[in-house]
Amino acid sequence: MAWFASDNTAPAHPKIMEALIRTNHGHARSYGGDAETMALKDEMGAVFGVSPDSVWPVFNGSACNGLALQAAIKGYESILAHEHSHIHHDECGLPEAFHGAKIIPLAGEFGKITPKACRYEIEKAIAHAPHTSRPRIISLTQSTELGTVYSKAELDAFSSLKSEFGMKIHMDGARLGNAIVSTGLTPRQMVENVEILSFGGTKAGALLAEAVVIFDPVINEDFAYRRKRMGQLASKMRFISVQMRALLKDNLWLELAQRANEKAAELKKALSSIDGAEILVPVEANEVFARIPKAIANSWLEAGHVFYPWPQCGPDAYRFVTSYATEISDIQSLVSTKVET
Amino acid sequence: MAWFASDNTAPAHPKIMEALIRTNHGHARSYGGDAETMALKDEMGAVFGVSPDSVWPVFNGSACNGLALQAAIKGYESILAHEHSHIHHDECGLPEAFHGAKIIPLAGEFGKITPKACRYEIEKAIAHAPHTSRPRIISLTQSTELGTVYSKAELDAFSSLKSEFGMKIHMDGARLGNAIVSTGLTPRQMVENVEILSFGGTKAGALLAEAVVIFDPVINEDFAYRRKRMGQLASKMRFISVQMRALLKDNLWLELAQRANEKAAELKKALSSIDGAEILVPVEANEVFARIPKAIANSWLEAGHVFYPWPQCGPDAYRFVTSYATEISDIQSLVSTKVET
Amino acid sequence: MAWFASDNTAPAHPKIMEALIRTNHGHARSYGGDAETMALKDEMGAVFGVSPDSVWPVFNGSACNGLALQAAIKGYESILAHEHSHIHHDECGLPEAFHGAKIIPLAGEFGKITPKACRYEIEKAIAHAPHTSRPRIISLTQSTELGTVYSKAELDAFSSLKSEFGMKIHMDGARLGNAIVSTGLTPRQMVENVEILSFGGTKAGALLAEAVVIFDPVINEDFAYRRKRMGQLASKMRFISVQMRALLKDNLWLELAQRANEKAAELKKALSSIDGAEILVPVEANEVFARIPKAIANSWLEAGHVFYPWPQCGPDAYRFVTSYATEISDIQSLVSTKVET
Amino acid sequence: MAWFASDNTAPAHPKIMEALIRTNHGHARSYGGDAETMALKDEMGAVFGVSPDSVWPVFNGSACNGLALQAAIKGYESILAHEHSHIHHDECGLPEAFHGAKIIPLAGEFGKITPKACRYEIEKAIAHAPHTSRPRIISLTQSTELGTVYSKAELDAFSSLKSEFGMKIHMDGARLGNAIVSTGLTPRQMVENVEILSFGGTKAGALLAEAVVIFDPVINEDFAYRRKRMGQLASKMRFISVQMRALLKDNLWLELAQRANEKAAELKKALSSIDGAEILVPVEANEVFARIPKAIANSWLEAGHVFYPWPQCGPDAYRFVTSYATEISDIQSLVSTKVET
Repeated sequence: MAWFASDNTAPAHPKIMEALIRTNHGHARSYGGDAETMALKDEMGAVFGVSPDSVWPVFNGSACNGLALQAAIKGYESILAHEHSHIHHDECGLPEAFHGAKIIPLAGEFGKITPKACRYEIEKAIAHAPHTSRPRIISLTQSTELGTVYSKAELDAFSSLKSEFGMKIHMDGARLGNAIVSTGLTPRQMVENVEILSFGGTKAGALLAEAVVIFDPVINEDFAYRRKRMGQLASKMRFISVQMRALLKDNLWLELAQRANEKAAELKKALSSIDGAEILVPVEANEVFARIPKAIANSWLEAGHVFYPWPQCGPDAYRFVTSYATEISDIQSLVSTKVET
Repeated sequence: MAWFASDNTAPAHPKIMEALIRTNHGHARSYGGDAETMALKDEMGAVFGVSPDSVWPVFNGSACNGLALQAAIKGYESILAHEHSHIHHDECGLPEAFHGAKIIPLAGEFGKITPKACRYEIEKAIAHAPHTSRPRIISLTQSTELGTVYSKAELDAFSSLKSEFGMKIHMDGARLGNAIVSTGLTPRQMVENVEILSFGGTKAGALLAEAVVIFDPVINEDFAYRRKRMGQLASKMRFISVQMRALLKDNLWLELAQRANEKAAELKKALSSIDGAEILVPVEANEVFARIPKAIANSWLEAGHVFYPWPQCGPDAYRFVTSYATEISDIQSLVSTKVET
Repeated sequence: MAWFASDNTAPAHPKIMEALIRTNHGHARSYGGDAETMALKDEMGAVFGVSPDSVWPVFNGSACNGLALQAAIKGYESILAHEHSHIHHDECGLPEAFHGAKIIPLAGEFGKITPKACRYEIEKAIAHAPHTSRPRIISLTQSTELGTVYSKAELDAFSSLKSEFGMKIHMDGARLGNAIVSTGLTPRQMVENVEILSFGGTKAGALLAEAVVIFDPVINEDFAYRRKRMGQLASKMRFISVQMRALLKDNLWLELAQRANEKAAELKKALSSIDGAEILVPVEANEVFARIPKAIANSWLEAGHVFYPWPQCGPDAYRFVTSYATEISDIQSLVSTKVET
Repeated sequence: MAWFASDNTAPAHPKIMEALIRTNHGHARSYGGDAETMALKDEMGAVFGVSPDSVWPVFNGSACNGLALQAAIKGYESILAHEHSHIHHDECGLPEAFHGAKIIPLAGEFGKITPKACRYEIEKAIAHAPHTSRPRIISLTQSTELGTVYSKAELDAFSSLKSEFGMKIHMDGARLGNAIVSTGLTPRQMVENVEILSFGGTKAGALLAEAVVIFDPVINEDFAYRRKRMGQLASKMRFISVQMRALLKDNLWLELAQRANEKAAELKKALSSIDGAEILVPVEANEVFARIPKAIANSWLEAGHVFYPWPQCGPDAYRFVTSYATEISDIQSLVSTKVET
């Protein structure tokens, strides 16, 4: 029985648990006044080239995105995002919850949106002000919901919308490490045009740990209030921060992302060899979307393997997600499952 | 110089002004405790077959829609509406402002959405609960933003979504009279499947007056609080109510709507006869969408005629709206404008 | 039968109706693009010494206050106001509705709050940041809910909180004219320290018309979006603006306020002469709060006179409001009512 | 150096860490579909006498309270709570953030509110409907912010407000265990009149773990959506649930609360013996509020002991919080600190 349901079914990496145990002794100031959090702010600030006070640990990814987006815009402004993005489709309206800002869903091949589609919405809205909410931020998921990755050139292409219309860029980095190892960019290169980043630790191997990293000082102002008010200020914050530190140490997060990406490449190979199967989306990170003949898929599911149908990719389409914890044997176990006939 | 920009550029009908003058003497209880408001609630209740306490006068259409929709759903629920609907495109996020509920924009020919498109969204959302906001209400604009009208059969076709998924129906009736005279339905027939109606008085000939009419007792509960809290409880309410009473008296609202629709039919005829012009959308109420050769349109605009380009209908497309105040001479003045060459 | 329930039971002043009739001919651009609105912005801007684009007509006072306050602060900030202020007690939470900002209610004699009470809350909150919402704006009602008036010196005393803590001042001027004629200040002097003003037209003699006037350019930015989104952008705005213009013309608003204040002074005199009655609050504008022996008050109510008990002022306390429409004969009719024994 | 700053500076109890390690192997369904969460729902449901589907693990206490309160009321309703309650003073407006409902702060001796004070606000609000937000829920902190505990009789006294006005009761149980061992009540007795409970695990000895427990089926409906939308649905939920299970096992949470309460009693004794010191509030749980001569307090602080001044209790007042991790030696270390003279 192999798990390809999501990278969040995996356990925490052993180094995460070691770090938790190490920090769990004695008293520590609450609400982030502790030494682990101080150290994390320094270390993550150094990774992304921002000051320590621009690093904000939180509990989970939904809130991380919601906080980031709501800090960056006003209620009468809107967010441009892919129609299949997590923030539009999988957060039950969290990004709109606090001030009701609209998400404008955009179509786009392989989970990516384009500057052209954004420009169309921006110009349409501005021409109809103040009747239409004003687009103010573009949310890019990196890697995307379809396991693809925006190249540096693709990211740079959004810059003209920033200078021309004052647009800001949010990067949903729930799987940022997977994109970084896929592109070969450094973390700093990856966020060069970004105002605010959701940095994901949970899918990367933590127990639960995420962080908002803010590159725009205007958005960073008062963020302490915003985080508190969304219920994301941990009282015993050291236990969040120490996980993040363990991920950053010796680039563990990138090593684990590399491992996950490699397994996705292996899985792609294995699925490609199946009669009647078809890879539907370029495999650039740790997800594989494939059409699998129904009889085969059903046999796999009946054998207890865990993965989801993905109807937005068409009939008989399925999603397979790998993680640092995926083993080659999991892939073999999946594809070698006997098909009942 | 003729005005086809919108039906809200017209003055108030003389009978509205007479009513205002008539009611403007002596003191009256504020916040709706006055005799005009009592009478209106009776009269409008009778028109739509609801009890007087289900009739709620308000100031304007944006708030009328926003109030109606927010009363009907929770923040984690969503609204299904046409992508070009007023509530999605022209209210600057008002329907989402109070609790952040999402509007899911749907495509649909000639400004109409279909039960099929709704069903797709509903089933997709339910399958992914609680990650996707739950669709709870369908908002139908009658007549639509494109001047078309849902037939009784088209309205009835949404009923299965109500029984099957508990969906509710909101009708945006900013131009309800135009739809009623177009279909020949009675007001009660028109709202047979509707839970909550935005009844428009302003575009119908009032100075400023709208009303929410509620058919679902659960939504009606506490509506007094909701209206107050959105800033739509007029202190001198008699001046809103008396306008509505004047519209209802002897079916003035339908008479004026009839007049507007007839002018749209005339305008359609006149535009059709222009070389190179094309009617783009069936003319069923008081709006005409047409492709007009650029040279001709520009001449009209330069001559001071007022109407808007409508790019969503394609290149060289324009919108022309008629109202009770449109005269045949306005149409003649428009189409007989000399084209400079 | 005499009316002292509120200044909003009065009819509109005849000059308001004349103005409405005068403007009700021909077409006019909607949403404020009309000539009446343009003229109003110039004229009211001149009265208060701001640019025309800082004047924002709206429908009513609740929304006027709500809009003003929400434009000035963020959701994690708070509003300091008197515990009996309209915004805290009479708006059903409208000022908090859009982004959930807190109102911190302060006690204070005769409806007035003090800089000292504000300072206490500000310092307490700042010391506990980010756990306590940050005070950002002080809302002063002028004249107050108890018919008293802040003197210029009292208003000026809040200035140190502005320089020291960046506090802003909102003035709820639903009865601003009454305060102006009471103090002898000019409108500009009255708002010298104010960032944002709710200017009341309805209680001053209009049918329905209010305006937000903004003195702080940062708050003024994007206010067009905010007004739209709260459902306060009238499509046929000329009918709001023309009322305001009529009030400003030849200082009609101040003349009517003067008349109302004079009647309150007369009423105070008349009530004072009643055996067992007591004036409870200094009468400085158009409201009288008095203790009236129960037998007498009941006789008046039974005779059909309209006024409210006001328990917050103690046992047997009642509120009497005068307006421009109050006649000396109304006062005589009230106090000469036979008391049944 | 001894810590009395708060019970959230303590480390997690060793049994919590053991449980985390035990569960951290293999894959598990995300978002609460895992075996640990299933078991927790059964076990905590049994403790409080509710069905498993009324138990909702979340990350932290702020969100726990915010979620509970917002699920129970509408935006036009209000929450009655002590003026020093956490929800009013320490959550940066979180309980109001989602729909802007008001908290009405009430005074009350030793951190407790009374049915009488609640009744006054309820009746005042209802008499002024819909202008005043309608009180709908009473939030009781148990044990209170001042370390006192509502007796069963005091809790029962709120019942008449439930039957008479439909009020609901929320219990903020961040320190519920301390109240339970203090009163000798069973958990079920403690919540007999409660509709919704915030159950605190973090201060009780967990790393981070809280839960909403709902006794009212109407509030429980759709709570899955609400939790998701506030960013409180953990993807790797097993790591939250397993902590809670460890707390419940063999009543560890009550054993640890007992330990904390005992240390508070010891501390009270030790402080009482200090010359010039005075205990200001009855010590009924794990907090001691005392007036300490300034010279002594300063010496303690300079020696590195950690505790906070508490000005709301008067001049020279300080708060001392004990936890399961407080040792007798901490108390001795504190009170035996040499006072510099």
